[in-house]
Amino acid sequence: MTDTCNEQREHGSDFLPRFDANGLLTAVVVDSRDGVVLMVAFMDAEALAKTRETGLAHFHSRSRGRLWLKGESSGNVLKVIGTLVDCDQDALILRCEPAGPTCHTGARSCFYRALTDEGLAMIGD
Amino acid sequence: MTDTCNEQREHGSDFLPRFDANGLLTAVVVDSRDGVVLMVAFMDAEALAKTRETGLAHFHSRSRGRLWLKGESSGNVLKVIGTLVDCDQDALILRCEPAGPTCHTGARSCFYRALTDEGLAMIGD
Repeated sequence: MTDTCNEQREHGSDFLPRFDANGLLTAVVVDSRDGVVLMVAFMDAEALAKTRETGLAHFHSRSRGRLWLKGESSGNVLKVIGTLVDCDQDALILRCEPAGPTCHTGARSCFYRALTDEGLAMIGD
Repeated sequence: MTDTCNEQREHGSDFLPRFDANGLLTAVVVDSRDGVVLMVAFMDAEALAKTRETGLAHFHSRSRGRLWLKGESSGNVLKVIGTLVDCDQDALILRCEPAGPTCHTGARSCFYRALTDEGLAMIGD
């Protein structure tokens, strides 16, 4: 990428998403009410387009190799209230209103354990 | 992966990081003071080990293909106060005390623009 491209990508007002070698962006979902990180997933161009079109977070499931509407089976969809883009445009923050627990385990956030010297320890909400 | 492995990985107390096909975990850096997301990067086993050993956030630079101590040139290191692990152990949250602006552009966070229908718009701190 040329310096001009970098300059434009980092300081410009054009949305120029930079998908990685696998065609993916990283998406961090935060709760729009308090900023708590709820989950991390990946979006390809299709998931990004669907998310912008519907206002509900869609991802690309790497394990299933397909488009995934978060909450499609549980009903715990994520309504996107706002989106932030990072400097080199390869990561997004989705500020969302969750319809229920975000984690498939039933936890509010997928990040329910802390790493300690002795292993993982459950944390409170 | 068997169901037993999944169960252990999701509910156990063993740290069993699940690196992707490229040998990477996703790491989300948040400010330990207020939870604001500062940056997103990737860690391989080496970066994870160095981070745990030194208490300073290390990543694997995908563009440079090498270990990267965040702040090695700018001095704006990230002191890790705590680490959270997600359900399937392929993503981490690093709760950090930043020594200065985290973004190489000088912004506090790499996420300094919002996506709008008209493109990207700068946001305040």
